[in-house]
Amino acid sequence: MKSVKIAILGCGTVGAGVADVFAMNADRIAVKAGRRIEVKYILDIRDLSGTPYRQFQVEDFSVIEADPEIEAVVETIGGAKIAYEFTKRALSAGKSVVTSNKELVASCGDELMALARANNVSYLFEASVGGGIPLLHPIDRCLSANELTGICGILNGTTNFILTKMIKEGIPFSLALKQAKDNGYAEADPTDDVEGKDACRKTCILASMLCGRHIRPELVPAEGITRVSLSDVHFAASAGYKIKLLGRVIKSDGGRVAAWVAPHLVREDHPLACVEDVFNAVMVSGNAVDDVMFYGRGAGKMATASAVASDVIDIVSSAPRTFNSFWEGPGDDLVTPPEELLSRWYVCFEAGRVPEGLGESLENPADRDRQAIITSEEYSALGIVKAAGGRKILSLLRVL
Amino acid sequence: MKSVKIAILGCGTVGAGVADVFAMNADRIAVKAGRRIEVKYILDIRDLSGTPYRQFQVEDFSVIEADPEIEAVVETIGGAKIAYEFTKRALSAGKSVVTSNKELVASCGDELMALARANNVSYLFEASVGGGIPLLHPIDRCLSANELTGICGILNGTTNFILTKMIKEGIPFSLALKQAKDNGYAEADPTDDVEGKDACRKTCILASMLCGRHIRPELVPAEGITRVSLSDVHFAASAGYKIKLLGRVIKSDGGRVAAWVAPHLVREDHPLACVEDVFNAVMVSGNAVDDVMFYGRGAGKMATASAVASDVIDIVSSAPRTFNSFWEGPGDDLVTPPEELLSRWYVCFEAGRVPEGLGESLENPADRDRQAIITSEEYSALGIVKAAGGRKILSLLRVL
Repeated sequence: MKSVKIAILGCGTVGAGVADVFAMNADRIAVKAGRRIEVKYILDIRDLSGTPYRQFQVEDFSVIEADPEIEAVVETIGGAKIAYEFTKRALSAGKSVVTSNKELVASCGDELMALARANNVSYLFEASVGGGIPLLHPIDRCLSANELTGICGILNGTTNFILTKMIKEGIPFSLALKQAKDNGYAEADPTDDVEGKDACRKTCILASMLCGRHIRPELVPAEGITRVSLSDVHFAASAGYKIKLLGRVIKSDGGRVAAWVAPHLVREDHPLACVEDVFNAVMVSGNAVDDVMFYGRGAGKMATASAVASDVIDIVSSAPRTFNSFWEGPGDDLVTPPEELLSRWYVCFEAGRVPEGLGESLENPADRDRQAIITSEEYSALGIVKAAGGRKILSLLRVL
Repeated sequence: MKSVKIAILGCGTVGAGVADVFAMNADRIAVKAGRRIEVKYILDIRDLSGTPYRQFQVEDFSVIEADPEIEAVVETIGGAKIAYEFTKRALSAGKSVVTSNKELVASCGDELMALARANNVSYLFEASVGGGIPLLHPIDRCLSANELTGICGILNGTTNFILTKMIKEGIPFSLALKQAKDNGYAEADPTDDVEGKDACRKTCILASMLCGRHIRPELVPAEGITRVSLSDVHFAASAGYKIKLLGRVIKSDGGRVAAWVAPHLVREDHPLACVEDVFNAVMVSGNAVDDVMFYGRGAGKMATASAVASDVIDIVSSAPRTFNSFWEGPGDDLVTPPEELLSRWYVCFEAGRVPEGLGESLENPADRDRQAIITSEEYSALGIVKAAGGRKILSLLRVL
């Protein structure tokens, strides 16, 4: 059986996981791909002595770039600087690239997909959204008979772990964050996760797939979970809701798209409310299929490596391609602010009762002392600030 | 733009839905497929006057078979007789076939896939399991780097609707079945659904994908939900479980496979426990990705048509293929009886207390009057019948 040689850029968690998956499941993968897939190089400048990766180590990307044996390059460096440079050089050298790098895809996926097409190679990034969960390929190929109308997902495991702790164990954000760090679910600097930036990048990738143009993170408002209090969590529970950090994309008839990341109240019998701990799930809506949901591990060494390796197998066993839901050029003109959409809001006042009439038409919990669920008309048109009558608004969260 | 012509066999619910999807989303589909896809024939012998399908109607399959313009045939006749005949003739005539027909695929998918390969055309059946849910393609392509170890799914919407009614509203099976009929979720003769036969066919298709050999329904034991009582439902709730009808496939190291359909107790915080009403969901386990779950509408006109139409688009836009997880020949020798697996059981005695020692090591509910959760050793080796001491056993259900 002929073999194909690949290179892995970056021997961090995901890069090492990809090498492990190709070693662990070599026979199975050879059957699926029709050829044996062998890791020939792992690019890293750190000391890999004493690891099984040392035998493949190179420190100079030029070696990989110039080796005609290398058909595909796995980019797991992360960030949008060196990774961007090496991806462009690999594609230009006629090598397909697979990545888990959401930051790079969200910032310049359109440019890199176009470069792949121009060089008749593939640029695939299934692992960039939802980790190991099959998501982008199914959206691209299995829902292709649908006009897709929206996407709504729990896209960040760290924040979902924290919220689950707050909901199930009643512990405050700061303590839950500490537990996430202790369990290895949060970085030393958790800003990108808890401020919603990571979820924002993934939302942008999904929004771009939906509308066929590149939706930049700069145009997608992202709010994290740092302002979610235990009081909010308890109120939500009393009204039959759980608080989840959602990335949302809603396409309107004219092809315009609203995309944002924010904590939302989700009814407790909604499938997304059942997604706990570090798990991710993404609900996709189409005009024929209605709602479908994809669930699994959104991060982690082997789960992410599963998606990366499957993309490599896809490349080896089929003609070059990007996703059919290829997107091109900036779609800035398509973006509508989420505020223009009709929705419901949960509001909590600092003191005193909820003003008369506010949210009265909606199902509200017994405790109407300070908190209510209101319509977006009440939120914007009637003016929630006016209704507050000078009192401070402690929380204002969207309701799914 | 060039166009491709297709034929639909059978203008029942799904067949009409496929025609509707191609009409409704024609422009979107043309972009995805690279060509316009036009329905040229609909085969049916019933009177289609007054319907939009009349203009395409033919009553003789030979017309379709002999028309060189027809590239793909959609088979939505159902059953394994005429559908089998026409599928063989279509494939032999060099036309790809797409189907939602689980009975036909479960009974002779191996033969039809082999025939498709021999004629260099495709035989695809995404819609045969899980209706509109992307499932077989993601298993086939997006999890290809994994050694798949098991599948566990809610594969029948009718029975899930009935169980949901029993659990949430406390109404008995017979009344819940009537409501399912009234809502159009159950056939006039609901036997195939409530006895687990429909779920069994889908389980066989999944089992065949997992082990690469054809697993016949005759070798897969199937128990339905007719023996599930409200008492079982209440006990399950008191112990933190919901009762779900599951199709299960477990692959052991030697490539052997256990597959069965039966009602199971599922912990209420398990993602499958959150799947309600007519929805389906399938959890797939791989050695890299861990567990992933696919959720959505497992039946219904437009959802099923979504999957069928997406398969047609896949055929039009790529090289002929069956699933990569192509399976061949009977795999009878691979099948192990599920009784050989370690598991837990829920048992309910007709009268008197649960015998001392039975299930004591397990978490059991407060009410130990007649019911307990026991290990498979207690079930088989120690002998549950002996433990019953002559008393009748009212219920014996597996615990997931």
